[in-house]
Amino acid sequence: MPTLLIRNIGSLVLAETAPRPFVAGRDMQALPQVNNAYLLIENGRFRAFGPMAECPGRADEVVDAGGGFVFPSWCDSHTHIVFAASREQEFVDRIKGLSYEEIARRGGGILNSARRLRETPEEELLASALRRIREIEALGTGAVEIKSGYGLTVESELKMLRVIQRLKEETAMPIKATFLGAHALPPEYRENREGYIRLIIDEMLPRIAGEGLADYIDAFCEKGFFTVAETEQLMEAGARYGLKAKVHVNQFNSLGSIPVCVKWNALSVDHLEVVSEEDIESLKGSNTMATLLPSAPFFINDPYQPARRLIDAGLPVALASDYNPGSTPSGKMQFVVSLACIKCGMLPEEAIHAATLNGARAMELEEDYGSIAVGKVANFFITPPIPSVAYLPYAFGSDLVERAFLRGELVD
Amino acid sequence: MPTLLIRNIGSLVLAETAPRPFVAGRDMQALPQVNNAYLLIENGRFRAFGPMAECPGRADEVVDAGGGFVFPSWCDSHTHIVFAASREQEFVDRIKGLSYEEIARRGGGILNSARRLRETPEEELLASALRRIREIEALGTGAVEIKSGYGLTVESELKMLRVIQRLKEETAMPIKATFLGAHALPPEYRENREGYIRLIIDEMLPRIAGEGLADYIDAFCEKGFFTVAETEQLMEAGARYGLKAKVHVNQFNSLGSIPVCVKWNALSVDHLEVVSEEDIESLKGSNTMATLLPSAPFFINDPYQPARRLIDAGLPVALASDYNPGSTPSGKMQFVVSLACIKCGMLPEEAIHAATLNGARAMELEEDYGSIAVGKVANFFITPPIPSVAYLPYAFGSDLVERAFLRGELVD
Repeated sequence: MPTLLIRNIGSLVLAETAPRPFVAGRDMQALPQVNNAYLLIENGRFRAFGPMAECPGRADEVVDAGGGFVFPSWCDSHTHIVFAASREQEFVDRIKGLSYEEIARRGGGILNSARRLRETPEEELLASALRRIREIEALGTGAVEIKSGYGLTVESELKMLRVIQRLKEETAMPIKATFLGAHALPPEYRENREGYIRLIIDEMLPRIAGEGLADYIDAFCEKGFFTVAETEQLMEAGARYGLKAKVHVNQFNSLGSIPVCVKWNALSVDHLEVVSEEDIESLKGSNTMATLLPSAPFFINDPYQPARRLIDAGLPVALASDYNPGSTPSGKMQFVVSLACIKCGMLPEEAIHAATLNGARAMELEEDYGSIAVGKVANFFITPPIPSVAYLPYAFGSDLVERAFLRGELVD
Repeated sequence: MPTLLIRNIGSLVLAETAPRPFVAGRDMQALPQVNNAYLLIENGRFRAFGPMAECPGRADEVVDAGGGFVFPSWCDSHTHIVFAASREQEFVDRIKGLSYEEIARRGGGILNSARRLRETPEEELLASALRRIREIEALGTGAVEIKSGYGLTVESELKMLRVIQRLKEETAMPIKATFLGAHALPPEYRENREGYIRLIIDEMLPRIAGEGLADYIDAFCEKGFFTVAETEQLMEAGARYGLKAKVHVNQFNSLGSIPVCVKWNALSVDHLEVVSEEDIESLKGSNTMATLLPSAPFFINDPYQPARRLIDAGLPVALASDYNPGSTPSGKMQFVVSLACIKCGMLPEEAIHAATLNGARAMELEEDYGSIAVGKVANFFITPPIPSVAYLPYAFGSDLVERAFLRGELVD
């Protein structure tokens, strides 16, 4: 059992002696840290940590952190990183004055990605998605959720989910797969919404579940996309196959879907640019994680998520990247943490909890990931020497993930 | 005379056969490009470029761009990168609800940096500023302006300017030094504004000019800082020593300083979050560059610069980072270009012109820097393969500067 010792850590961040499943409300402000610390890894898992004064004398491999901080890897619980092509032309169209919704009406947006994905062979999709996995590994991500939803036909949704399945063999980070057949209504069903819902429930779901290709089910519940009733139908159908829900809600409007998601015990409700008091009340005491994606409103110029209201109500929140070619062409979680602080009023400690432990919880990975605790998988990163954890969101243009590790091995 | 050949360039961006001193208004949309190109460098300067079909057969050194794009290096015409300490605690104070102005009143802000700088030895200031120079070199910056203004005493202002002077010996990029004695009123002059202006004019300026330590003079013309009349006094005094003006104006208020700066033939007016029609009229036909710093309002949550109104009025605009520990702890020019597009409505072509050629103009470096033209200094960077120039601002979280070159040499 090989051991790896990290010495001279300026501060070991989110080091838990009594691991918590998630952190909510006011507790998110108290980030457990050990200053001037060591960290011992054995066989890819954390074995021990403590002050340098108690540092073990030997290990198979020794790394000097040189005063840099150690953070648990980011847990990015909401991405769409299997896609066929970037969409910078739509970005230019938006600068010229078209709205995100207008672009969608012209056949751009998700339907543009769907057209391109259907034409692209599985091997090519795998190669480009793998490049994005390598990119986020280097940016300090150590667990990720990936959605389908650019297929929108039985075969293309299966193709996307098979790519996600194959990605799992290529990276040391855990991947959770979410089936998002209800991402947009494909043009061939424009006059037949019910037909598409039936296609998802009667054809896609049985095959996906049969092949074990998805962990969760999702829907884009929004005006112009899917209704609350349709979303509920899909959660119900998913539940029959044992798929919990992670749902796109309240990006542009609060339609009342959050209480319905809570009723179905959804694992998370994601986006939340627009949140009503009723939404907040329904989340209290639930098992549903409020997941905020601030890079999306940054890029498409929408209002930012009201993180303060959620946290001040005592709720836990998670942060995720939403990495996708339309509204968020970036998977950089350090920048998500910066935006959460600069634009959503989160304190650095809250944002770090949200992007690690609570993100892990939103993927049911909190037992093994999301913090530095004895027995958890050794996914972490080392920064250069920094004065405090607040420096990480403050240095919004820097990449402070100097050395990233997955299962105790350096990512290169 | 050693030659360096760059082959297989996906697109050579801002390649000029007839170099322009700057680009204004509608012309900023037309970015000259050569697709599938080569670029030949001789003795640290551009020697030739053209389509790959005409690529020379040999050179002392050959680099394959592998389809990546080549851009001229960023010309960052407004920074404050000599400082003693980061200010992430003020960042946290702002999250907790204090305004930038309130923090300044409590002795934070510029006066905080001034206190720290006075206590810090010159060698230490040099070492930390040099780390920032290395950081921006790697981020593709190839020319930079650096201001004093955290000294606010004769000795400390001289100390800062000497650090800037010494930085010139440490980097291959050109550095312009700006004397910003009028950055904030030091506490010891709180009841004696006129006394501090006299100190700048009668003591600081003669010594700085005598030692040849500054290229330009600057003042922070803003409510609570320096008035338009004081700014004019300083421009007049600077002119007597041959120092042109680059002036902080219109960050929070339009006080009428822009017409005065134009009257004094200022090289640039910088910030411009708030711009009146009279300001725009006065800039027309002038030699004064409108310089926008969108990272500052991004970080301190102010309104973004109205770039569209300026460009649509036919004016040239430049983009710069404003890298400083209070309002902009980042020197990443690619992100400045992203913000200019996402938040200020600039087209990618306009933003690239603004961050290169027009930035060079705002430092009087346009004859040798700011574009790819035969005879100019070979400061440039290579990206990975990207689909178009629009991809650069679109990929807001990425670092697309894969290999940066200064005077034809790879930065490592």
